[in-house]
Formats: sequence, C-alpha cells, structure tokens
Amino acid sequence: MGVNAPLNRKLRMGLVGGGQGSFIGKVHSIAACLDNRAYVAAGALSSDPARAKASAPDYDIPADRAYGSFTEMLAAEAKRPDRIDFVAITTPNHVHYPVAKAALEAGFHVVCDKPMTFDLAEAEKLVELAQKSSVVFALTHNYTGNPLVRQARDMVAGGELGEVQAVRASYIQGWLRTRLETGDQKQAAWRTDPARSGLAGCWGDIGTHAYNLARFITGLLPDQVSAHLKTFEAGRALDDYGTAVVKFANGCLGTVTASQISHGRENDVRIEIDGTKASLEWHQENPNVLWVRKNGSPHQTYTRAGGPYLSATAAGSCRIPSGHPEGYLEAFANIYTAAFDDMARRLSGDKSPGKSGLYPTVVDGLDGMNFITQCVTSSKEGGAWRSLKHPLLK
Amino acid sequence: MGVNAPLNRKLRMGLVGGGQGSFIGKVHSIAACLDNRAYVAAGALSSDPARAKASAPDYDIPADRAYGSFTEMLAAEAKRPDRIDFVAITTPNHVHYPVAKAALEAGFHVVCDKPMTFDLAEAEKLVELAQKSSVVFALTHNYTGNPLVRQARDMVAGGELGEVQAVRASYIQGWLRTRLETGDQKQAAWRTDPARSGLAGCWGDIGTHAYNLARFITGLLPDQVSAHLKTFEAGRALDDYGTAVVKFANGCLGTVTASQISHGRENDVRIEIDGTKASLEWHQENPNVLWVRKNGSPHQTYTRAGGPYLSATAAGSCRIPSGHPEGYLEAFANIYTAAFDDMARRLSGDKSPGKSGLYPTVVDGLDGMNFITQCVTSSKEGGAWRSLKHPLLK
Amino acid sequence: MGVNAPLNRKLRMGLVGGGQGSFIGKVHSIAACLDNRAYVAAGALSSDPARAKASAPDYDIPADRAYGSFTEMLAAEAKRPDRIDFVAITTPNHVHYPVAKAALEAGFHVVCDKPMTFDLAEAEKLVELAQKSSVVFALTHNYTGNPLVRQARDMVAGGELGEVQAVRASYIQGWLRTRLETGDQKQAAWRTDPARSGLAGCWGDIGTHAYNLARFITGLLPDQVSAHLKTFEAGRALDDYGTAVVKFANGCLGTVTASQISHGRENDVRIEIDGTKASLEWHQENPNVLWVRKNGSPHQTYTRAGGPYLSATAAGSCRIPSGHPEGYLEAFANIYTAAFDDMARRLSGDKSPGKSGLYPTVVDGLDGMNFITQCVTSSKEGGAWRSLKHPLLK
Amino acid sequence: MGVNAPLNRKLRMGLVGGGQGSFIGKVHSIAACLDNRAYVAAGALSSDPARAKASAPDYDIPADRAYGSFTEMLAAEAKRPDRIDFVAITTPNHVHYPVAKAALEAGFHVVCDKPMTFDLAEAEKLVELAQKSSVVFALTHNYTGNPLVRQARDMVAGGELGEVQAVRASYIQGWLRTRLETGDQKQAAWRTDPARSGLAGCWGDIGTHAYNLARFITGLLPDQVSAHLKTFEAGRALDDYGTAVVKFANGCLGTVTASQISHGRENDVRIEIDGTKASLEWHQENPNVLWVRKNGSPHQTYTRAGGPYLSATAAGSCRIPSGHPEGYLEAFANIYTAAFDDMARRLSGDKSPGKSGLYPTVVDGLDGMNFITQCVTSSKEGGAWRSLKHPLLK
Repeated sequence: MGVNAPLNRKLRMGLVGGGQGSFIGKVHSIAACLDNRAYVAAGALSSDPARAKASAPDYDIPADRAYGSFTEMLAAEAKRPDRIDFVAITTPNHVHYPVAKAALEAGFHVVCDKPMTFDLAEAEKLVELAQKSSVVFALTHNYTGNPLVRQARDMVAGGELGEVQAVRASYIQGWLRTRLETGDQKQAAWRTDPARSGLAGCWGDIGTHAYNLARFITGLLPDQVSAHLKTFEAGRALDDYGTAVVKFANGCLGTVTASQISHGRENDVRIEIDGTKASLEWHQENPNVLWVRKNGSPHQTYTRAGGPYLSATAAGSCRIPSGHPEGYLEAFANIYTAAFDDMARRLSGDKSPGKSGLYPTVVDGLDGMNFITQCVTSSKEGGAWRSLKHPLLK
Repeated sequence: MGVNAPLNRKLRMGLVGGGQGSFIGKVHSIAACLDNRAYVAAGALSSDPARAKASAPDYDIPADRAYGSFTEMLAAEAKRPDRIDFVAITTPNHVHYPVAKAALEAGFHVVCDKPMTFDLAEAEKLVELAQKSSVVFALTHNYTGNPLVRQARDMVAGGELGEVQAVRASYIQGWLRTRLETGDQKQAAWRTDPARSGLAGCWGDIGTHAYNLARFITGLLPDQVSAHLKTFEAGRALDDYGTAVVKFANGCLGTVTASQISHGRENDVRIEIDGTKASLEWHQENPNVLWVRKNGSPHQTYTRAGGPYLSATAAGSCRIPSGHPEGYLEAFANIYTAAFDDMARRLSGDKSPGKSGLYPTVVDGLDGMNFITQCVTSSKEGGAWRSLKHPLLK
Repeated sequence: MGVNAPLNRKLRMGLVGGGQGSFIGKVHSIAACLDNRAYVAAGALSSDPARAKASAPDYDIPADRAYGSFTEMLAAEAKRPDRIDFVAITTPNHVHYPVAKAALEAGFHVVCDKPMTFDLAEAEKLVELAQKSSVVFALTHNYTGNPLVRQARDMVAGGELGEVQAVRASYIQGWLRTRLETGDQKQAAWRTDPARSGLAGCWGDIGTHAYNLARFITGLLPDQVSAHLKTFEAGRALDDYGTAVVKFANGCLGTVTASQISHGRENDVRIEIDGTKASLEWHQENPNVLWVRKNGSPHQTYTRAGGPYLSATAAGSCRIPSGHPEGYLEAFANIYTAAFDDMARRLSGDKSPGKSGLYPTVVDGLDGMNFITQCVTSSKEGGAWRSLKHPLLK
Repeated sequence: MGVNAPLNRKLRMGLVGGGQGSFIGKVHSIAACLDNRAYVAAGALSSDPARAKASAPDYDIPADRAYGSFTEMLAAEAKRPDRIDFVAITTPNHVHYPVAKAALEAGFHVVCDKPMTFDLAEAEKLVELAQKSSVVFALTHNYTGNPLVRQARDMVAGGELGEVQAVRASYIQGWLRTRLETGDQKQAAWRTDPARSGLAGCWGDIGTHAYNLARFITGLLPDQVSAHLKTFEAGRALDDYGTAVVKFANGCLGTVTASQISHGRENDVRIEIDGTKASLEWHQENPNVLWVRKNGSPHQTYTRAGGPYLSATAAGSCRIPSGHPEGYLEAFANIYTAAFDDMARRLSGDKSPGKSGLYPTVVDGLDGMNFITQCVTSSKEGGAWRSLKHPLLK
C-alpha cells in the first residue's frame, strides 16, 4: 500500500478505453488503484471524443488530461513533467496494437487487456518492439493473480506434483446464449464482431484465458493443437463454443473447452492438473480454495490461511485474512501489483528482471494469439494438428 | 419389493463370476437382491472350479448348484423345473461373449456387465442373437440407474432443455496411478491385460461409462469421433487416460474424458449438458442432486424430494425419502429392477416392449464397443475422424 | 456376506410393524437383509390383523408366520425349532415397550427403532430387563452406522482431537411445515400425536438423533441441559422445533437444534466438534466425507478411501470402493451388522461383550429418553437447567 | 464511481487507528476508497505519535495532516477549509467512544467499527448525541454489505418468506485456539484484554456480528436472551466461545453461536432463516450465493446475476458481473457507499432520511452493546433470561 519503493510516489495511469458503458476499463482502474499505489492521471476513454470527455469525472481525471484520442494523450503526456508512467489498454481488441505500439515507442510502460492483439502478426511485432525497449509489458490474464493459482504454480515448480501429465481447463459462460449483440449490449457487440474481436469470438475472449491458466500453472511449453470451434447461435459471425486438445512438449495431454452458450453458467473457469505425485483442482467461482489430492492421503483443501504450507508468493498475494473472501478485483489487482514492482524499479533505473515471471507478459500475449490462430485454422481444417511452437515463444 | 407381478415369485439368478477376490460380482448380487425380487439360485463363480465351489456359501448357493463352469451351469439348470431365470455375467470382459451367447441360445435372460464384449465383432453377433430371441438383455451401465440421471433424461426428452448442443462428460479416477497390476491386485490385473480387457483399458472400463451416460441422457445419435488415448504408466499395456471429441447427428458437440491416473480422484463421473433452453449438471459422487440452470433465473437444485417437478420415472426410482442419501447400490439395483419388470412380464407370456427403454440393452452394448473400437483406431491414426454410425444402431 | 460365523446360518428376523403405508419397517428389512446374513422369517406387520396378513408377501413371509399381533408371533415362534432369532420393532413409539419387554422376556434378541420407548419409566424398566437377560439389544440410531461417523469417533477416542470442548449438532427438516397430520399422511399422524409419540414430537423424532450422534462420536457423558421447544404450526399437539444447550461432564459445551418446519430442508443432520488439537465436521446429506481441520494445516477431507488414515472400524464399515456413494441404507445396515456379530456369537454360546460398543444399546435408548424428558421439562420451566445424569447411565 | 452527487467532489476521510501492525484500519481505507468517492485526507493513526507519523505515507497522508492524536486531528481539521468530512474509527474498542463523541460534537460524520463502544452506558450516550446532531453515523457490521445479504433482507421485507419463525446464526473462527495474546500478536492482545475490549471477547468481536446479521435480515425486534459464554483457553481473561438463545418479539426463536477456538475454521459466518413460506441460508465464506428453499420446489441458488429475481438494492450493491467473485472488501465498501450517499446529501443541505436503513447505525450499535451486556450478565447468572428491549431501540 502507498508509495512504490524505491520510486517513492504513486504511479500515474493513462487509461485508454473505459468510457461510459464499458466494463473492463473500470475494473482496470479499480484494480490499479486498490492498493493506493497508482491513480488515473489521464485518459483517452472513448473513441468518441465527446464521450471521452464526459467520462473523465468518473475517474477523477482533470479536464485537461481527458484526451480525445490515445494519440493525443501520448503526445501531450510525453511533454509533461508529471507525465503518466504507464498506459492501460482496455479497448476492444482491434485497438490494442496501435495503442501498445505507440506507447512502447514513446517509452511508456504498458498494461494491456487480453487477447493481446487483433491478429498474430501484430502480436509478433509487439514482442519485437517490447523486447527492444526496456518497458514493462503486462497482460491481464487476471485469473493468474489469484493467490491459490500462484500457489498451484509454485507447487508445480517445486516438484510437489511430480511430472505433469494431464491438464483439463475450461471456461464456461452462458450470457451469449441469445444474440445480445443485436441489441444495444456493447460488451456483446464488439466481442461478436470480426472487425473488432479478430479471428475468434468465445475462443479469443475466454478460451485463451483457460489456455493461459494451464500454461501459467504448469509452465509446460505447448507442442500441437487440434481444435473444434462452433457457432451455435444462428447468425452470429464468430464462434461461441469450442474445445481443443493440446499436446505439450513433455508429452502432457491437455484439453481446453470454452462456452458462451451454457445456460446459467457465469464465469466458471476450472482447471484440473494431474502429476505423477499429486493432482490439483481450482475453480474461479470459488477461488479461495485449492484442492490437492494424493492417493492414500485425505484430500487437502488449501486456503489463503498462512502457515508453512503456503508459498511466499501466494501468501504475499493476499490482502486480508483467510476466510474473508477475496475475489476478482483482488486477483486483477495482483497483476498490477507485480507489474508496479517492476515499473517502480525500472523508473528508478534498475533494469534487472524483477517479478517479470509473476505476471503475464508480451510473450504470453503472443502465445495466446498463436493459440487462437492455430485453433481457428485447425477447426477450419476439421481438427487438423497445428503446431503451437513459435520462434518467439521461449 | 417382494414378488414380481404378474409372475408372482422371486426371480432366480445364475451368477457367473463373483468368486473370492471379485468386486463386481458381489455388487450384482446385492443390487439384484436389494428389493427382495430375486435371489442367487445358482452360480459359476470362478473359472477355477475349486474356488467356484468355495465361494458359493457367500451367496447362499447350495452346493449342488455351485457349478465349476458356466457351461455346466447352463446345461444343468436347463433341466431343472426351478431353473434359473437369468444369468448375470460379472467376469472379466473376454468371458462376456461366450457366456452371453450360451445363455441367449439356451433362452435365459441376461444381465451383463460392461463393456459388453471383448471386441466389436462379438458385440455385433450378440445383437443379432438377442434380437432373434425374446429374452431380456440388460447391460449394467449402472450410473443411468440414478434417479436424477433419469430425471435429466426425462427433462431432455420432454423438451425442457430445448435442442441439446453441447455435452461434456468425464470419468476421473486415480487408483491406477501406479502399476497395481504388477502386484496381486486382481481388479487391476485383468483390466490392464489386453488378453482379458480387449482393445482398451481405461477407455473401455470407464470412458465408455461417460459416453453411455451422455447418450442415455441426451438420446442423441452419434456421428463421428476423434480420440486421443495415452498410457502414462510406463510398461502398462493399455491406455490409462484418454479424451475424445464426439460429433452427434444433430450437430451437438461432445467431449468425453477419462482418467485412471489422477491422484486422489475416486469415481468422479461428471456430466454437463447445454440446451438452447436450459443446462444441466450432475456428479456421480454427489448423486442426489441435479443442477438445472437457465439464464435469468436462480440456479435450481433438484433433489429426490417428491413434488410436481420430479418425473414419474425419477420418483419411482427412489427407495427412501430425499435427504437420506441413496448411492451406488441403489442405482445399480434400479437397472435390475427395470430389467426384472420386463423379465417377469415375458416369463408370464407378455412380449410387449415394456421398460426396455429404461435400462441399457444389447444395442447400447454394441454402441459402446463401437465407440471403444473407433476411438482406439482414431487414436492410433493421430485423432482421425471415425464414424460412430453403425447399421445395428438405431 | 452370507452366513454368520460362528453360527453358520442366516439369522431369522421377526418384524413388528412395517405394514402397508409404513416407511421404516421396509428400511429395517432392507438393512437387515442387505448383506444376506438375515431374512424376514416372520412378522406382525400391523395392529390391524387383516393388513398384517396382506402385507406379508412384501417381505416373503409365508402365510403361517404372518401373525395378527406381536403377542401371537412371540408365542408361536417360541415353539418352533426354526424360531426367529430376533425381533425388529418398527412401530410407532408407544408400542416399542410392550414388544421389547415381551421379546426380552421370551429371550429373543431385539433391534428397536428410536426413541426407545414412550416415556422414561419404560426405558428404565427396559434397561433393567435387558441387563438381566443375555440378549443383544440394539437401537437404530442409524446415523452412527456411517463409516465416517465411526471414523470420527475413532479419532476422538484415539486422542486425535485432544480434549473435546464444544459440539454443535443439528437436524433440520421441513416436511412438517404444514399440518400433514390432518390428512392421511400416516408418518405425520403418529409423530404428532402425544398418545403415540410420547412427550415430544420433533424433539423425540430427530432432536434425539442429533444428541445421540454427539454422544456417540465424543463419548462424553452429559451433565445438564437447558432446552426451548416450540410448536410453530398452530393446532399441532407436539413441538416441531427446538434447541438445547448441553453441558457435558468434562466442561464441554454443546448445542442441539432440531426443526421439522424449515422449508425445503430434507434430512440435514450436521455435527461440528471442536477439540484442543483438531476439529471435525460431518453432514449426513453428504455422508461420504468428513472434514478434519487443524490450525496451520490445509483442511483435510477424509473419504471412504482406504489408506493408513482410515480406522479399521471405519474401513470395515464400507461395502464398495470410495467414490461410489454409500448412503442411508448402508449406514442403517451397519447397525444391524454389528448387532448380528453379537447375536451370532451369543447364539453360539459366547457371552463376551463383542461389538456392543459399536451399535447403540438399551442404555443409549435410556439416555435418549432421559434427554427428551429433561428437555421437555426444562422447556416448560423456561429453560431451567435439568440434570442429564441418570443412575443407569454409566 | 467518482464524484459524490450532489456534492460533486470526493469525501475526505480522517482515519483514527490503522497504524503499522493494524489490520482493520487498512480495510477501512481500502473500502472507503474502492469506488474513488473518498480519500484519506488526514489521520491519527496510532496512540503512539511517532508511529502515527511513520504510518502516514502508507495512506498518502501528507505530513501536516498526520496527527499525533485524534484530539489534535479534530481541532486542526475543524479550522481547515478542506477539512475532513468524516472520521473513521478503527481503534480497539475502548477508544471508540471518546473519538465518536468528539467527532459528533465537532459535527463530523462518523464511520465506526464494531462493537460500537466499550460499554452500554457509552452507547446510550452516543445515541443521544447522534440523534441530537444531523450527522451520519455508520457502524461497520460489514457482512450486511454483501449483495446477497441485502437480497435476503429485501425478500423478508417483501414477504417472500412469510412470517419469520426461526433463525440460526453462527460465527466460527479458530485463530485464538492458542493464547496468541501472550506473544506479540496485536490483534489478539487487545481483543482478549478487558481494559481494551470491554466485557466480552469472542462475543463482542464476532458474536455481535452474527446477532446483527440476524437482526438486519429479519428486521425482527429482540425480546429476551439466555446466554452461555465460555473461556476454553486457560488464563485468557475473556470469553472465547459462546452460545445464546434469543426470543424475538414476534415469537421467533433464534440461536447465536460464536467461537474463536475451532481448529482450522476461518471466518465462517452462517445464517439460516425459516419463514412460513420459504427458508434462506447464507455463508460468508461463500458469499456470492444465497440458498432459497421452499417445500415442493427445487432448491434455488440466487447469485449476483441480474434478472427479475434480484432486488434493486442487491443488484445495485454489485460492482462486477456475477461469476466473478466479490468478497469481503466489496461488502465492506458497500457500507461506506451507502453512508457516503447520505453524507453527500447532508453536506449539500438535504436532511431527508436517505439510505439510513441500508447501513447499520448508532442504534444498531446500541443494540449490539445491549446484546453483549445482557449476554454477559445472563451467562454469569447461569443463563438467566435478560431483556433485550431497550428504550432507545425502536
């Protein structure tokens, strides 16, 4: 909480997106500000300049820093002594790349919503840009910010599961069971529009979350994928359901399933991981527990309670005592927190790697775009195997 | 309970398998006798005649009806005025066909454990034999006997889910995480032995249960399958993990996953079904509830409690009031109960179809063997699509 | 399964109660016969002789052993060489004592439903009768038959919880939310009738189960009670809700709450036990798990899975592998099983104590009647403390 | 989010307590600032002036507004044009009253942690003071801020439960199972110290939460209480366990139980409410669901999902879409939000009652102190009935 050591001041956020009617922009601002380490200093809140200005008071953005476009914001802010430290990109997908590119080139740190870009080519260019620069680039695969997801990851990394051999990840929603996009539902409209969402609908919006979660926890490199995407709502331009089989480099077999058309299901992200020594299960809708199982022992339920069994990273990702539920916002804020640690270090002149392993980066963004792209192609080819190896993916 | 109308006496069971060290033979006898409508009259309890005899007192089988082989049993029983009414086949898979064939040819009713046969060719022959005869042939895909599974099926059949578009079925176990088959674990030994289990291990033992459950509840006909089976325990001769994508004839997309190597997981059968009007979720380890969800309404939890919302079949499948858990044995017994209704009718001369839709039959057994066979082939061919249409599958 | 060593034959049950329209009589017969160690040999199934006879075929009772009254049954059976071994009393409460007394005096073993008698005086007389005789007297507080309840008890006895300091037990139902007793619901009618149920309604029917469960698991002796019983349904003659504070002899503080008027609640028996070293939680509607918690450790979920952590008694109380749910009937049968072990021993001439600690006995029945009686008195006196110490309660 | 209509600016918080080592002070500041409607403008963070100053940067409090005592803060702030709008009292209990009194007298709005005061006399004086003034006085019984708790309350108020007849509320923790207070655990030290905590330990800290939750949801007025408090950890000066029976004015029977010594239990607040038409159940550790049950219907699980079934107040208490968990901080913030609405109105000159029913007030604080006081007395008198009617309790 409070200042950012060693920088010793709050970080200044430049918010792109988040205008009236938006959902995720507000989430970013709450998450970024939750620990009082940042504030929204400037914004280009909408592609409609009038709405951009009108939305500024919602974030306490002063009128002179409520810009009509991100270009304008970056140009004006670059000249200020109290210029923004980072840009948060919370727009529909097709706008991610131009904003991120411009921010990187201007030397601003970047926090970008997922999926990272509109297409794979943009993602590749962004990796190159980011790797040439020295800025922090964080991608908000927010579920990885949950303390018990980080615990799971640390357990795998520490060998407590042995070799990971099977992963089952899914993300089941129901809100697009009807064609909300034909009404005035902004969230539905852009997510189902190929011009704004990209190649995929459900698969890019949430399938990629499930895939990333599997990658984050297991640390396994992907090898190949075979996918089947479906559009169940007649007239919809993009997929609203899909499933994929993923072969990982070590021989692990994974499945990823995502749905937007399952009645009554909300944001049901679940992951199960089987290792040779133990297995794990975690559900996003009940995020404060992690089930750990081992043949011959009682099943174990890890909570956020302190104790010798919780990793330092997991324990350090909690704000309040166990039993008092933490949720979506705290997990989201944990992505910001780790990125802030790195930003503060770099702004203070320290270029060491820091916490870059703790939050998803531009390379994870590329991995996600590659996953989406190969899945869409695989699905068009009847489930043909596509490689998930990518030269930029370490 | 008690007598079987219109037959007005208990049915006489001839048990094949179930000798000392067996598991499923005892389950069959408990299930068959639970409602006092049948008793174990005779048995060929083991392929080892000495053990067959020694095991007879466990079932109250008199010495003169404790046979050394099923051939002996069928021959001797056929001559008795109080001959057995049905044969229950509870042996390893490779023995199912010869027993079933002999029983059918001798005019005995049959209750057979799953998977139905050693290979698809045997299954095809059995369908033809059964269809020529007038006997009852019931296959113990026991999970379909759960009252709330039957409720789910009735809801789909009654249109409460609308069109079914997606199904996710899985069966996750952990007991074969180590190579129990190298010790003296009989259950593990035959299940992992190609000479006794058939083409598949995990997939035939439990993958087929998950597939059958999906078929039973949805009533959808299968079209094609793409499967990936794995053997994670080095040295094991058959698969111990697998996943498949199933396309159904109506365009529904299904996934089936099964594991025997997931630490600490017991018999975790789960199924989720998405329809255009509502969705369902059921877990075998918590079988007394069924979750029904519909956008815009509170989630609903159906229990075995009576009331206008429970179908007559589901209500009729319960023995005790809701809140007092029923479990595996009762569900297993419900398969027997429905088959007994048909047996009693036929033994009384009535040849009408009766409850033949309520328990899995020889055709379901064929469907299962076809599923196993096509999945194994698909897996060998890298997940190639294989047809699940079969001329004998209506 | 099968014969009862060292007796080497099935036990013969004489069922009192269980006529058409009954619930618990059928439960007793299923439970007694589940393991094929007993069969219903004779019955006095109803106080209406015609219905008693008509109900006999439901239990395969031959016509000549379908008696018109329990007096008739005991007299006739006493003369037979294949006389019944035990009497199962499944009538409304007011009939328990005369049947039990007559059975004890005639030297039959007894299995009696709870609460044991109509009033405390009868209970006291029954203890004296039973203690003078050498018969087995088992009381079906059936929830104590659950494997994980027995595990809980063994853990307390083994010191794994340390000193037990607090217990919270409850039994919440909703079926008597309306006055079913004014219609033709037999179960409701006698339970709400002081002439048949005794001093208490809800409290005798289910409050006593919750109390007994606490006593069974903890082994603590009761000291004093303060109770508050309520009748919420206007016109009902007996309580339908109640709560009590129980002081145990060691200083442990207990609470017992029972309801029959909680909408939608089924048979929700829950118990939580706090010891100085660990705590336990168990729910009857989800009986196959036991939660064990200890500060500083992950929460543990015990299941019926074998392994070093399950006590021999708990493991020996399971019929099927873990993950395949066992429920109400199996737990009920476990009471019978333990009693059968003792009956078979005694019938073989062995008078040693055997398993008499594993099933509730006549003394537990007295304890329950004393609990009911003192609670009713306490409630009438505004919650005054009443002693639960009783000279016959060791 | 953003400005407070009609005031059109952020509210300025003066934080009392919250210095290094504190827990609840930080929670208050996060909760107050979550929606960007307030910021911490000044603070008297510790009774130790050096620590008070040192802690200021954690809250971005400028040095000149980091005061050495609350007296100093109130005096200095009263003179500033940008003076604080409200005082948040987050100290140990014995300091609540002097701060609240001084704040009220100086005309500052107040948000006070619970229990409201050190003793009942202070509470009575505070009610009089508050009722004479026109300031907002909010008490942070934070669990009432959960959307589904507010939904429960709206359902009761709207008659959906019928008459409420029984309530079971409990709050089970385990962290004080050992005498943490003998070490350097500040949270444990003051809570177990009669000089700082007041008459009660566990009962004042969490028993009062459970009681308040019952009062908030049901709206029932209390009549009488009989309580039993225990100190299980030898040497501890205050209770660490307790249970009470509460009679409400309408005849409803309630039970309240609280523990700090239940191994492994975290913050397990549960409440069950039985009405003549339906029943409710809610658990704080799983706060995003509310179970609603009605005989003859499937059980219903309400979530935060929008729809015709969620009350406007409940829906308006959510920040993010259902399925994305909200937790402790959001619920806490909802208390602030409702109080802010009233503060902003009053600061704009509007004296109408506003949302004063939506957050606990000074009268609820009095009710809590009366509850604690009568329970302690009752317990000392062996559970004697004590009146909960209080002339200041409407």
